[in-house]
Amino acid sequence: MSSTLTTRQQDYAQWYNDIVLKGGLADYSAVRGCMVIKPYGYALWENMQAVLDKMFKDTGHQNAYFPLLIPKSFLSREAAHVEGFAKECAVVTHYRLKNDPNGGGVIVDPEAKLEEELIIRPTSETIIWSTYKNWVQSYRDLPLLINQWANVVRWEMRTRLFLRTTEFLWQEGHTAHATRQEAVEETRRMLDVYATFAEEYMALPVVRGVKTANERFAGAEDTYCIEALMQDGKALQAGTSHFLGQNFAKAFDVQFTDKHNNMDYVWATSWGVSTRLVGALVMAHSDDNGLILPPKLAPVQVVIVPIYKGPESHERINGKVNEIMNALKAKGIRVKYDSDDATRPGWKFAEHELRGVPVRIALGLRDIDNNQGEVARRDTKEKTVYPLDGIADAVEQLLKDIQAAMFQKALAYRTDNTTEVNSWDEFVRTLDEKPGFILAHWDGTPATEEKIKELTKATIRCIPLDNKLEDGKCILTGAPSIQRVLFARAY
Amino acid sequence: MSSTLTTRQQDYAQWYNDIVLKGGLADYSAVRGCMVIKPYGYALWENMQAVLDKMFKDTGHQNAYFPLLIPKSFLSREAAHVEGFAKECAVVTHYRLKNDPNGGGVIVDPEAKLEEELIIRPTSETIIWSTYKNWVQSYRDLPLLINQWANVVRWEMRTRLFLRTTEFLWQEGHTAHATRQEAVEETRRMLDVYATFAEEYMALPVVRGVKTANERFAGAEDTYCIEALMQDGKALQAGTSHFLGQNFAKAFDVQFTDKHNNMDYVWATSWGVSTRLVGALVMAHSDDNGLILPPKLAPVQVVIVPIYKGPESHERINGKVNEIMNALKAKGIRVKYDSDDATRPGWKFAEHELRGVPVRIALGLRDIDNNQGEVARRDTKEKTVYPLDGIADAVEQLLKDIQAAMFQKALAYRTDNTTEVNSWDEFVRTLDEKPGFILAHWDGTPATEEKIKELTKATIRCIPLDNKLEDGKCILTGAPSIQRVLFARAY
Repeated sequence: MSSTLTTRQQDYAQWYNDIVLKGGLADYSAVRGCMVIKPYGYALWENMQAVLDKMFKDTGHQNAYFPLLIPKSFLSREAAHVEGFAKECAVVTHYRLKNDPNGGGVIVDPEAKLEEELIIRPTSETIIWSTYKNWVQSYRDLPLLINQWANVVRWEMRTRLFLRTTEFLWQEGHTAHATRQEAVEETRRMLDVYATFAEEYMALPVVRGVKTANERFAGAEDTYCIEALMQDGKALQAGTSHFLGQNFAKAFDVQFTDKHNNMDYVWATSWGVSTRLVGALVMAHSDDNGLILPPKLAPVQVVIVPIYKGPESHERINGKVNEIMNALKAKGIRVKYDSDDATRPGWKFAEHELRGVPVRIALGLRDIDNNQGEVARRDTKEKTVYPLDGIADAVEQLLKDIQAAMFQKALAYRTDNTTEVNSWDEFVRTLDEKPGFILAHWDGTPATEEKIKELTKATIRCIPLDNKLEDGKCILTGAPSIQRVLFARAY
Repeated sequence: MSSTLTTRQQDYAQWYNDIVLKGGLADYSAVRGCMVIKPYGYALWENMQAVLDKMFKDTGHQNAYFPLLIPKSFLSREAAHVEGFAKECAVVTHYRLKNDPNGGGVIVDPEAKLEEELIIRPTSETIIWSTYKNWVQSYRDLPLLINQWANVVRWEMRTRLFLRTTEFLWQEGHTAHATRQEAVEETRRMLDVYATFAEEYMALPVVRGVKTANERFAGAEDTYCIEALMQDGKALQAGTSHFLGQNFAKAFDVQFTDKHNNMDYVWATSWGVSTRLVGALVMAHSDDNGLILPPKLAPVQVVIVPIYKGPESHERINGKVNEIMNALKAKGIRVKYDSDDATRPGWKFAEHELRGVPVRIALGLRDIDNNQGEVARRDTKEKTVYPLDGIADAVEQLLKDIQAAMFQKALAYRTDNTTEVNSWDEFVRTLDEKPGFILAHWDGTPATEEKIKELTKATIRCIPLDNKLEDGKCILTGAPSIQRVLFARAY
């Protein structure tokens, strides 16, 4: 199995596709740009959802659900928003099919044309703020802290499994507040939630930052983001949190009476992460043998493979495995016993490596006689013989070690591939010779940012939040700058 | 609050809408026939989802996700399916908007017309079976036991919050099997899962049955269903499980090699329940004061309301409430403390009644002095004074009692409103005078079924699975019949 993967060296993009397809995460579909999320990939997403959902609820949010379809006119209400979003989206124009009188299956019934076209949501600010208008009258109705798990459609020209698909799954938080300060705090709070999730669960170090005006969400006053580095040195935006000011409240006339009986527009935020995170997980950690999944999110954390000849020895092993399984399950560890008769241990080893199961325990008759088992960790491929007594405790600790080691490895990679450069030549050379994050001075103008993108395809990923201020000169124009910003080529 | 509800006597339909809107379950949206599911309604749906999802997984199913959009031509592949489903659905014809050159916001870009129109899924058999073709080669790939949580769109002419909306949320199971028998067993297994869920969690007694040919799912060989009785004597179909034979396998050419190396088409099932269940829950149990929620699904199971004068007494009560809350939470009970300063206890009582919280504990200073609290159950409105020592145990038991009592009450209602009739006159009179389920003989022909529907608006809900056979005469035609079938007017 695993031997058929393209290596990262050969073709990184193909390696990624191979893993996603052969690892059972997703499949292409009959619809352009849309993918099928297969059970293993969906289980990974479900684990992500469960953690995020709890983090959202722990920070006071509630889930709700708003319509998939948005009246076309809503998109034009917020001027910047329509520029950014209204363009490439799926448009519903009719509501009925009829039998083709010429016998060719079904055709669109021309009489069933909608008076106003409906757009499949590319994001839900407009439909949600048109609803909030009815929910908010007084400061007592605020804050509204609402999240939605949903599918959205953006008509992307170039698609890529998980990373950029026409339809994708995501969550979108939409909150309403009485003051600017509260809304800004919420924006930052959710950025921190995302960063914590990425680092503690995905084992993915991220840079927290704020986008430049060019890269801001359409309709936002400020867009915060977390940026991660993939193994090919390209950046991936893993989540965004937007401070929307009063833009959507004004567009949909959502006003409230404050404590002093004054009317004001409501302050807003929105924030989201998507199934793109599954792609990030694959790209950040996996190797030429397949997926490497962080234990906290892996659908199967431990797989046990029996090594036996004949039914009698199989049975003896089964008994021992049951004990181990029960001990692991009692600790809440997701364990699977791969006792399939039709495949050999070697094939199974490769298969579970491909699927990124963090820990494999191989158990033969001789092992049982010696009261031991061979434990292999997926991340380092290290094999160690463990005594069976107390193996559940040892495996529990090992899962924690793997989680920590994966983060440290990704962090070391990022550190090694973050370069400070001070001139244009150095910038261009680094992009080609040592792709990764580049910290460089920029004069702060959109024009310069555009020019750099045009010349190199590198973009400003963000202005890191923890930036130290230092005087410098813009790498392109030489104009004065007060801080370095984070550049990279990006997904 | 509650005093503003329309009563069931006055106008049952309006009572239902009042409860859904004022109870905070859902709201109308700007899009025709689509609703907004508000946080409280969504929390109810989440609780349903959690239970069902576990039941699906416990019966071996995995979740996956398939595209929202379906190529128009797919719908024509299965002849019966297209007749039943392809007609009233949302059609995507374009993928881009552009600025109106006349300045009127955005318009559909005529140059961005799709070559083949896409349909927003009304159900996913076609897109899923087009995918299964790639997943199934041999009997070793079977069974495929897959479920999807998704939104679907059916362009309904008359909509009703939760019960019938243009967009709704549901789960759809789609399984593939090597033999007819296995598929039939799966169909029945999932019907049983639905029935168990309805009775044990929703406290809603259901009749398990099979649909007549007229009422079958478009593309199914057999449709099984669970039917429940609402408080106005109308029936509501609460879930369906379809045995699809080899129809979709043939339509999408999904064949497999069996153990003897013969090729055959795969056997299929599909099954689903939707947010309609929230509507069923409301209609089955609630009263003129609002929702009555079964404890197992209620977002808040216990609410504690303090009764105090001045901050000092409030504080003393808070201390005691904390103890009680902790004891309840330790038992996994979902408890809320309504300590809002701005509203009075009487207002709170009405509000929590409206929202159907199963148990309310009121606690004043004198109660604390006497080491007791007033416990009110929502279903019977009975109030009892409980000693505070061991109150968590008592409340835990009370929640079980309420769950059981709600089921028993609904069962008694159904028994009282299920009538055996033996003549046409009796049938018509019963429909008007004592609406409910009617068990009557039918000659087994679609023509008679149609005629009865035309004359009375009553339909055959199902042929109950536990039916005893008995000779009789069709109420309309007098032709011989071997069993009674279940009639009702239905939602």
